[in-house]
Amino acid sequence: MIGQRTPDTRTLRPEAVVALGGGHGLHVTLSALRRVVADLTAIVTVADNGGSSGRLRDEFGVLPPGDLRMALAALCGDDEWGQTWAKVLQHRFSGTGELGGHVVGNVLITALWELLGEHAAGLDWVGRLLDAEGRVLPMSDQPLDIEAEVRGADPADPQALSTVRGQKQIALSPGSVTSIRLTPPDACASAEALAAIEAADWVFLGPGSWYTSVIPHLLLPDLRRALVTAPARKVVVLNLLGEDGETTGYTNVDLLAALFERAPDLGLHAVLADRSAVHRRGDDADELTRAVASAGGSLVLADIAHADGTARHDPVKLADACAQIIGDV
Amino acid sequence: MIGQRTPDTRTLRPEAVVALGGGHGLHVTLSALRRVVADLTAIVTVADNGGSSGRLRDEFGVLPPGDLRMALAALCGDDEWGQTWAKVLQHRFSGTGELGGHVVGNVLITALWELLGEHAAGLDWVGRLLDAEGRVLPMSDQPLDIEAEVRGADPADPQALSTVRGQKQIALSPGSVTSIRLTPPDACASAEALAAIEAADWVFLGPGSWYTSVIPHLLLPDLRRALVTAPARKVVVLNLLGEDGETTGYTNVDLLAALFERAPDLGLHAVLADRSAVHRRGDDADELTRAVASAGGSLVLADIAHADGTARHDPVKLADACAQIIGDV
Repeated sequence: MIGQRTPDTRTLRPEAVVALGGGHGLHVTLSALRRVVADLTAIVTVADNGGSSGRLRDEFGVLPPGDLRMALAALCGDDEWGQTWAKVLQHRFSGTGELGGHVVGNVLITALWELLGEHAAGLDWVGRLLDAEGRVLPMSDQPLDIEAEVRGADPADPQALSTVRGQKQIALSPGSVTSIRLTPPDACASAEALAAIEAADWVFLGPGSWYTSVIPHLLLPDLRRALVTAPARKVVVLNLLGEDGETTGYTNVDLLAALFERAPDLGLHAVLADRSAVHRRGDDADELTRAVASAGGSLVLADIAHADGTARHDPVKLADACAQIIGDV
Repeated sequence: MIGQRTPDTRTLRPEAVVALGGGHGLHVTLSALRRVVADLTAIVTVADNGGSSGRLRDEFGVLPPGDLRMALAALCGDDEWGQTWAKVLQHRFSGTGELGGHVVGNVLITALWELLGEHAAGLDWVGRLLDAEGRVLPMSDQPLDIEAEVRGADPADPQALSTVRGQKQIALSPGSVTSIRLTPPDACASAEALAAIEAADWVFLGPGSWYTSVIPHLLLPDLRRALVTAPARKVVVLNLLGEDGETTGYTNVDLLAALFERAPDLGLHAVLADRSAVHRRGDDADELTRAVASAGGSLVLADIAHADGTARHDPVKLADACAQIIGDV
């Protein structure tokens, strides 16, 4: 869970890159992109309501810090100092007591927010602690919630639609998501996030839980608008097969369709997918290529899965693929 | 609650100084001594069982981290970095939820102990985070408890003696302490603490809660032995009037007697007391001088109280008095 950098920072490219996502998907994107570019900003979903983050949100009304913490850990300095503090921040207390299940970095970030009163400033201090190679920003300064229409949440009536509120509840629901929205619907994106997107040369979206970590970035009106109008080249990184329980049974074409449904005018430079996952998802290769082309982009197939066969991207292979995409321009 | 250093570190003296105590008393000693000497080690009581420390002790079986955290904060670097992290570590969450009342630094220290498995190593990492000008060690690697015989704990029978267990319970007891012991009685002092005392040029004991922060250092057999046999010059800093609820009504002679009762062979170089507190405690000046002389030391009276009239030492005035004592040798 702790990032590693390529040893020689002199080879990093100067382009400004913004990576949007949340959770483990964003962690792996950042672990990869830090090996490629020197100017890296993460923009992170803030709709988690489960686990340590959910408990802190309930107790103090703060943004859920967990995904922000995980993104910061992915950017930690690669010496003993950065690695040690990243381990401390990622440490989860055991047991079922009042601190059991809480993660140290979540507690620290909450305290910094209380003391400094600004999300970006608090996260920047954690970044300084970690000697982080990049910046981490919340997508909004307001805690958000995800609401989904889910088909089959009630096993007795597999065709019935029901509304499920909360990222944790959606993840636990046995049904499949048919539509999704954020509440409050009029929430604003964070000013720092909008500025980073505006200034970016490249924007990376995904991989990750498609409906709860990736698509939420397209559901905030001003964030979607910024993504659509930004001069940056946009790259979507698709999930490996089995990476995301929310989209079991989806082909890659289905994943892209779910994105384009929320942002039909989001032009793409490229879509990056794992070569074997494309076949294993049952995609028609021509259909996938056409779907990517319809958004103005090229399909890039590469070997980016972890060699151990788990549904995880390999940060080094993903870095190579990202470097190729950025370098080919 | 955050330490400040004299601006010019080039004037610091090279002597190795160890300060023993706990809580607010030790915080002020460290805030003073860091202005005087370059080689400073704090040795801190680990018998607290109240508040955030008590809750962490109950949940994880760790040493109570609160007094250790407060000592580290007193030594923090005096730039924005050190001051900010000290504020974060001293931050206490509000409310009555599962984190309400917990202090960030206590949580962080607990996590470092879980990860590193060694008390001194965990505290050294916090010291590095704070850019601390000195080292902080627990008196023992084993959580301790204080048991006291208290007279008058039962208002219905003011002369009756009863046993009160736990630092928190003793502090809350309406009676007055007549004797005190540590459990387990066979606990060992930490090896690092013993080594620091052995290597010290000066040892400072007090001020602070006399029975729960100062005297405990004389109740661990090997720690008392190290203090008695150490070649260091020993200085006791007496409390201001009203500083310590445990010893209401004590004269300074009574405070010293309570120390000497536990360590009759603890030779002293000096006893430092606030000039006006000596008069206000109702001491007979000759008797106090004789008590100090009986331990081989000199009574040093100085103006070391805070100008605001609260029962707090002024770190700058205390530093001047300590510098005088050390410099006069």
